[in-house]
Amino acid sequence: MSTELLKIRIAHGAETAMGPGKAELLEAIDRYGSISAAAKHMRMSYRRAWELVDTMNRCFDEPLVKTAPGGAHGGGAQVTEFGFYILKCYRDLVVKTRAAAEREIVEFASHLKPPD
Amino acid sequence: MSTELLKIRIAHGAETAMGPGKAELLEAIDRYGSISAAAKHMRMSYRRAWELVDTMNRCFDEPLVKTAPGGAHGGGAQVTEFGFYILKCYRDLVVKTRAAAEREIVEFASHLKPPD
Repeated sequence: MSTELLKIRIAHGAETAMGPGKAELLEAIDRYGSISAAAKHMRMSYRRAWELVDTMNRCFDEPLVKTAPGGAHGGGAQVTEFGFYILKCYRDLVVKTRAAAEREIVEFASHLKPPD
Repeated sequence: MSTELLKIRIAHGAETAMGPGKAELLEAIDRYGSISAAAKHMRMSYRRAWELVDTMNRCFDEPLVKTAPGGAHGGGAQVTEFGFYILKCYRDLVVKTRAAAEREIVEFASHLKPPD
């Protein structure tokens, strides 16, 4: 769980096409090679991770993750070239926002109470 | 409900201190003069609007909304000077993000399927 104050998501109707959790999940799938291993690393249920992947794949016009069948929790999974491209767009968006709105982000931080 | 693709929120632990819905609610409270009238305008329950106001007031070190007692659904409500300041920071953050990351936002838009 990120402690980052700024959360940016890309909405698609009532769903979230891309956001902090989905970006982190793509990175974990790339690192660990399967949805179940990525979910375990993120302390998330397999079902939840699968749903996040399914949402991404349904929102965009190309799949971001490709899965191979096999096993109760599926076989391996790969982030597609398109998935890496969308991930890079998202990371760039966050970096550019942090740079462009540094003053506002500092203002928010200085006026938020310490979280419980 | 905004059809905006970009959604930015300011997290405070597990809660959202400021985001699209809370910003819109502050503007509605300013326009209509009470939480109940603002909620009605936003087609939101009074309870939900009250919870959003309560969350904002708890997350920041000063209240964003001041309420006057009275009636089943409370009396009038006013956005404080601090509330307007935080609202302006949020709106500026969104505008700056749109300007700084225009390329990425266009990329997302061009690769999202039409929503259902």
